[in-house]
Amino acid sequence: MGNFMEMLRQKWQEKKFLCIGLDSDFGKIPQTLKDRLWGMPNSTAVVINAFNREIIRATKDIVCAYKPNIAFYEAEGVSGLQALASTVSYIYRVAPDIPVILDAKRADIGNTNNGYVAAAFDLLKVDAITVSPYLGEEALKPFLDRADKGIIVLCRTSNPGAGEFQDLYVTDGITPLYQYVARKVVSKWNKNGNCGLVVGATTPEELEQIRRIVGDDMPILIPGIGAQGGDLEKTVKAGINSRGAGIIINSSRGIIFASSGADFAEKAGEEARKLNDEINKIISQISG
Amino acid sequence: MGNFMEMLRQKWQEKKFLCIGLDSDFGKIPQTLKDRLWGMPNSTAVVINAFNREIIRATKDIVCAYKPNIAFYEAEGVSGLQALASTVSYIYRVAPDIPVILDAKRADIGNTNNGYVAAAFDLLKVDAITVSPYLGEEALKPFLDRADKGIIVLCRTSNPGAGEFQDLYVTDGITPLYQYVARKVVSKWNKNGNCGLVVGATTPEELEQIRRIVGDDMPILIPGIGAQGGDLEKTVKAGINSRGAGIIINSSRGIIFASSGADFAEKAGEEARKLNDEINKIISQISG
Repeated sequence: MGNFMEMLRQKWQEKKFLCIGLDSDFGKIPQTLKDRLWGMPNSTAVVINAFNREIIRATKDIVCAYKPNIAFYEAEGVSGLQALASTVSYIYRVAPDIPVILDAKRADIGNTNNGYVAAAFDLLKVDAITVSPYLGEEALKPFLDRADKGIIVLCRTSNPGAGEFQDLYVTDGITPLYQYVARKVVSKWNKNGNCGLVVGATTPEELEQIRRIVGDDMPILIPGIGAQGGDLEKTVKAGINSRGAGIIINSSRGIIFASSGADFAEKAGEEARKLNDEINKIISQISG
Repeated sequence: MGNFMEMLRQKWQEKKFLCIGLDSDFGKIPQTLKDRLWGMPNSTAVVINAFNREIIRATKDIVCAYKPNIAFYEAEGVSGLQALASTVSYIYRVAPDIPVILDAKRADIGNTNNGYVAAAFDLLKVDAITVSPYLGEEALKPFLDRADKGIIVLCRTSNPGAGEFQDLYVTDGITPLYQYVARKVVSKWNKNGNCGLVVGATTPEELEQIRRIVGDDMPILIPGIGAQGGDLEKTVKAGINSRGAGIIINSSRGIIFASSGADFAEKAGEEARKLNDEINKIISQISG
């Protein structure tokens, strides 16, 4: 079990900026795989786990992180959560140097967060988790205290209606809430140097503002490329730090469901390589 | 499976305003119960479930709702979630008229929320869920569309640091964010009449403001009585609507862990009755 930030920096050195969202919606897993495993005991868990393993085998030399969103696993009940646990174990066995970010957007009051911390870091043993900022730093202390883990705070999300509260001007009348969150996280919450932010690729201008606010050292996890319509070039240019790193570009459906046939893993590998190559090309243009 | 709001209104008519938080932290469950069940297969799940059943048996004639916080169950992994599922089933069997509120504070982007909706409403079959507002109405649509279920939105939480973002003035410079959230929920999100708000008992002035904003028809779920220090009289007076109802007063630790001995269920029943009686006394003082 390594330190999340160190693992991530190592991957950036290897020119890996792509994170694959293991949003393994059971309904979308190729039928060919389901047919092959049909009738096994606990077949839902087996199918999800087998799907993830093939995706991981095909992409582990390309990515800087994996990010399963727990909602897709909770949707299948205990079987889904068994598949998630077994997927995380598999990543540690075959790619112990790749950090796993649990996308769970959790947050509760302090003593209750201990339960989520135990579930994520002590049972599942993931390296990082996404959290929601609404309850404030004090509530999130059980997360923030885990210095070796990444605590990635929702800042400006990628959904069309994200601005309803996040874009509201606060305090001085010129700072939108999402920028205020970014400032708080970088100036106060980040005592252990373990914080990151979630900023959607759907709004590159906002992403650029946030990078200015947080400086070079804070990783920004960027969903919204691909199915959600984020522009890759604008996103990379807006999010990159002055050292040509600092970004975790997430793609989920566009990679893991690139093919619905028997070649799904191969196609996922191709899409992943293509996307990481494009990111590197954009980065070298900038520094070039 | 009834309609959450109707079930709740029925309970208020029966003069029941107390919600018991089934925050059944395994570490705090009386040793006597653990000793009795030690060595059973899946004993963690059995112990938590047995504890909850005894609490429910002792309190089901007193309460308007049960509210398990899922963090305490996730902390025990699959066993904890099995105990939660079996607790919810038990409530439906012995008290089908009491709604179950899953305290999960979930929220993600739209298509991902489908997973949380399936987990809560289709698998666990709870009647209501708490959600976080940060991503906005558009993201929460999969929740809000479930007209028969209660969607209870975090507004002003009970933790000491809740004000970090929730108290920030937005737009006109005189409306704090938490009031802006309340206005949005009552004026826009509540198309199906299925929304509620979470407002902590720790800040009765804020609670009073929120009741003014949302009017009579929106239930307010109020945690923070007891261990967190909320004042019951001020809370009831601030939260009650003009018809002497509208409040779900939650108590967790103060009831379920009232005794650490073999009499834990009996003591929970006593504490619950005492608290609900106090609430009713305060309400009858108000209506004079």
